[in-house]
Amino acid sequence: MHLLVIQRILGILLMIFSLAMLPPLFVSFLYLNITFDAFFYSFAIILISGIILWLPVKKQKQELRIRDGFLVVALFWTILSLFGAIPFILSPDPAVSITDAIFESFSGLTTTGSTVLTGIDDLPESIQFYRQQLQWLGGMGIIVLAVAIIPMLGIGGMQLYRAETPGPVKDTKITPRITETAKALWYIYLSLTVLCALGYWLGGMSLFDAIGHSFSTVAIGGFSTHDASMGYFIDKPMIEVVAIIFMFLSGINFALHFTAWRHRSLAYYLLDSEFRAYVIILILVALITVFYLHNENVFPGFDRALLHGVFQTVSIGTTTGFTTHQYHLWPGFLPVLLLFVSFIGACAWSTGGGMKVIRFLLLLKQGIREITRIVHPHAVIPIKLGGKPVSPRIIDAIWGFFSAYVAVFAIMLLILMMTGLDQITAFSAVAATINNLGPGLGEVGDNYASLTNTAKWILCFSMLLGRLEIFTLLVLLTPAFWRR
Amino acid sequence: MHLLVIQRILGILLMIFSLAMLPPLFVSFLYLNITFDAFFYSFAIILISGIILWLPVKKQKQELRIRDGFLVVALFWTILSLFGAIPFILSPDPAVSITDAIFESFSGLTTTGSTVLTGIDDLPESIQFYRQQLQWLGGMGIIVLAVAIIPMLGIGGMQLYRAETPGPVKDTKITPRITETAKALWYIYLSLTVLCALGYWLGGMSLFDAIGHSFSTVAIGGFSTHDASMGYFIDKPMIEVVAIIFMFLSGINFALHFTAWRHRSLAYYLLDSEFRAYVIILILVALITVFYLHNENVFPGFDRALLHGVFQTVSIGTTTGFTTHQYHLWPGFLPVLLLFVSFIGACAWSTGGGMKVIRFLLLLKQGIREITRIVHPHAVIPIKLGGKPVSPRIIDAIWGFFSAYVAVFAIMLLILMMTGLDQITAFSAVAATINNLGPGLGEVGDNYASLTNTAKWILCFSMLLGRLEIFTLLVLLTPAFWRR
Ligand SMILES: [K+]
Ligand SMILES: [K+]
Repeated sequence: MHLLVIQRILGILLMIFSLAMLPPLFVSFLYLNITFDAFFYSFAIILISGIILWLPVKKQKQELRIRDGFLVVALFWTILSLFGAIPFILSPDPAVSITDAIFESFSGLTTTGSTVLTGIDDLPESIQFYRQQLQWLGGMGIIVLAVAIIPMLGIGGMQLYRAETPGPVKDTKITPRITETAKALWYIYLSLTVLCALGYWLGGMSLFDAIGHSFSTVAIGGFSTHDASMGYFIDKPMIEVVAIIFMFLSGINFALHFTAWRHRSLAYYLLDSEFRAYVIILILVALITVFYLHNENVFPGFDRALLHGVFQTVSIGTTTGFTTHQYHLWPGFLPVLLLFVSFIGACAWSTGGGMKVIRFLLLLKQGIREITRIVHPHAVIPIKLGGKPVSPRIIDAIWGFFSAYVAVFAIMLLILMMTGLDQITAFSAVAATINNLGPGLGEVGDNYASLTNTAKWILCFSMLLGRLEIFTLLVLLTPAFWRR
Repeated sequence: MHLLVIQRILGILLMIFSLAMLPPLFVSFLYLNITFDAFFYSFAIILISGIILWLPVKKQKQELRIRDGFLVVALFWTILSLFGAIPFILSPDPAVSITDAIFESFSGLTTTGSTVLTGIDDLPESIQFYRQQLQWLGGMGIIVLAVAIIPMLGIGGMQLYRAETPGPVKDTKITPRITETAKALWYIYLSLTVLCALGYWLGGMSLFDAIGHSFSTVAIGGFSTHDASMGYFIDKPMIEVVAIIFMFLSGINFALHFTAWRHRSLAYYLLDSEFRAYVIILILVALITVFYLHNENVFPGFDRALLHGVFQTVSIGTTTGFTTHQYHLWPGFLPVLLLFVSFIGACAWSTGGGMKVIRFLLLLKQGIREITRIVHPHAVIPIKLGGKPVSPRIIDAIWGFFSAYVAVFAIMLLILMMTGLDQITAFSAVAATINNLGPGLGEVGDNYASLTNTAKWILCFSMLLGRLEIFTLLVLLTPAFWRR
């Protein structure tokens, strides 16, 4: 381990992160919020902490090895989430416990979007803005993580994207260096954000809400400036439509956006197996949801069933977690179906959570291969993606990822039940956090405030596990990692 | 397909199965039950049906191909379960619907042990006996299935046991022919049954109950002649201890029993990786259960917590499904923990259900390998069992089995919720049937009577899926199977 280099990097990150206090500081000033001091002190504390970390080791510039990456990533997300809680702690409104402040910050930066706050409509605008911005910054972090770091660490089969990425994604290799790839994708991220904000604004949101919700839409975060989430705007269906479009777009592989944009051709989307699977899953689930809502007369008219059904499918399916309606009170089958879909999640290299469509697709192909192998025991059947065979090593890694996901899910569920949660709440709380989805069912259908502190800390860990693709954290718990 | 040969075999099986009506017929006679006619007519109907199937094709004696095996196994279990329902339908007591009769019969022959009957204590003795006997016969079928057919069909990695089985299991190759292997294991099955009945009898059961419960213990079935299941004998702790011992023994690989017995040495058990994992899992879970029961003061004294905790762990862990107490009303964490353990289930080549310890063990080893591979990307790490490497093909098959299990579980759960069940009932009903466990939670904690007919049919399918190791049935649903 190059611990001193890691300390230097963390110091720099904190100094950069302190700048994140300035926009809400400005919002405080603009709206005459009582939170001005809170953001100012947060800025100072984070900046000074960064300097204190960085100063003694500022000359440590050895090259990091791949193995250091696990520690950097885990520390990065944990420490920023802890420091990100400072404004919530210092601000007189909302008056929250330290645990709640940290939960909210983890939920923001991991773009989970579970909240412990109520009365969000009445919060100071600066705090509202800060929450939305946390998610947007988290989304930027995820892009770097997914594109540059996870494939390098060789986690969960995402080394698929390391060497020769199959199909159109390959084109992105034109910007081979990590930072340049990330930069290119950040431009897409920024463009999507601007377009989304514009859409919301034209749809009828205030400029403040439009910007805030564009942040949490493009980051697949799900935070809102209203307790009713997107349901607040239900009388302006254009806003819901804009949300559906941008949640859908943000759930797509950003490298695919980049390729399509660079070639000015939509054909690249259709050539991508993961994109096709993503679309098919969403359409199928939306059909079932709308039909079921209509059939059970949950809404008076078909148009409402259509809007709510499609919105909630895209929102939960991409793991955004916006709600237009208390979907957790819909007839039992639907919320569970949608939660299951959130396990599949969005595409790889997007800001979404869950296991990712590409892994689901490869699992499905392997499942079909196993059945074919039973019928034809002597056939040699390679798993292909975009016409190219996928190496057995990657297949192994994806099976391993899936099993680890299931095992971690079951263990977290049991631990939560041990703290006293009922089965439905525990089930949905783990699903909502490990998939970085946000809202759950039962007691956590709207809000996580009523949970015990122990449960909240466990769920913070669950959000982090999901966001860091399980293995980044698991590896840190093995002795083998620390040896040598 | 050799459909005519398959018809001939089914005819013979039915003729043999008709003999299963004779012992309960005798019990009817002995206890002056009103069911004498029911069993006599059942005998006649089944025998004549068998003859009708067999007579026109009795000369069809071509060798079956492996592919025919899938159809034979699926038809065998389905048709015997359907015919096995006839006594329940014909008997005036219990007065049950056809669906309930079929559910009870499927539950018996798959050794699941879920029941739709209440007032079991007051049923005619012949019906009580018949239910227990159904499970015992099911257990005999499972041994043939697991030992002779599944490895041959190459399902779910169990071809592991086909060629060179690692460690002590190999010795069983001394009786290479299917029927001889099965026969040898049937002797073990029979011996265990006799010893178990003797134990129950000495422990204080009536001879009738001792025989009946020995049937459902050794078959890992879980049917009882009392509504309170083993709880009926809670004032005779020796009976509970005998049950614990024989559930544990019946959950062990029967080939391992055979080897150890042939060599008169217990060392063979300790050499077997699956056996060690089986014991460790049961001990760990029993420790947690007993500690938790004691800590939550579910029972007045530690001795009660110990007895109920160990009993319920072994009963659910081996997928027997006996209960000494309404364990589904224990603090929420425990029932869910035990249900999760039932997914691991008993050892391969036992009469137990679940995914089998050997698969869990191999999944665990692969999970650890994946983590090691992340830390040491260039290391070559074979998965070993009993010191010998396991082929990648088998590893693939086990991953595939696991994924299919999870997928089928999720889909069945959703379908059940669609019929109107709540999440906990649906979750536990699928777990209890697909793992061939028996009792669930929520509405199906004691009894499945209150479910709709649709739900009962779905659960029959689930029992069959579990018993036939998922793929035997899945394969039949693919067009590839029927081509050529
Ligand atoms: K989210
Ligand atoms: K059972």
